[in-house]
Amino acid sequence: MRRRRLKRVEVKIKQVSQVPANQVEVAGASGTKIQWLLGSQDEPENFYMRLFELEPGGHTPRHDHPWEHEVFVLSGKGSVLTVEGQLPLARHSVVYVPSKVEHQFRNDGDEMLRFLCLVPKSATY
Amino acid sequence: MRRRRLKRVEVKIKQVSQVPANQVEVAGASGTKIQWLLGSQDEPENFYMRLFELEPGGHTPRHDHPWEHEVFVLSGKGSVLTVEGQLPLARHSVVYVPSKVEHQFRNDGDEMLRFLCLVPKSATY
Repeated sequence: MRRRRLKRVEVKIKQVSQVPANQVEVAGASGTKIQWLLGSQDEPENFYMRLFELEPGGHTPRHDHPWEHEVFVLSGKGSVLTVEGQLPLARHSVVYVPSKVEHQFRNDGDEMLRFLCLVPKSATY
Repeated sequence: MRRRRLKRVEVKIKQVSQVPANQVEVAGASGTKIQWLLGSQDEPENFYMRLFELEPGGHTPRHDHPWEHEVFVLSGKGSVLTVEGQLPLARHSVVYVPSKVEHQFRNDGDEMLRFLCLVPKSATY
């Protein structure tokens, strides 16, 4: 009798507070932590969900890469610098950064800037 | 001289308050609105970002489909019902619903339940 392969499917639920926060150590980043809310350990089918926390004055690297970002600002104020200019960010801003477009997220405010940033699984960081 | 095709790339930024909210009219849904924060009009490369708002007692359909959900709860309380049981939701809950797993989101609280729900572009609703 042929053995039937059953895919084990599971709904996952977690709280942000349960997910480790790691300092972003890449060159050009400052005062930035990342939590992989849905990362490779969760084996999502198509994309990853991360939460970034930037302290006042903190920023991500100014860079580009061959994958897009989908961003949702949870709290704080800041900006995203791009080749098209500087765009202000506030609570409940939604940002789409297409692939291959240079960008940098900055906390220009005086409180923490927290945002979700989702990327396709093809992203290499 | 050959004309060079330049892909027009644009960073998009918007506020949640600028995005229309539409009642979810599909069978089995009740008291539920959807905002397509990054939808087909934005031509995202791989996945869509939506925001759901469920009034107290409201719910999405109990159904399954061949694409996954990645969910982040912004505010309120509720639950997600699945074949694996009923899982409580609160502010900053993160949920992964794999493809082909039956599920239903419910507002069990007395305030609005708001959550982001991201789906791959293969999703047909």
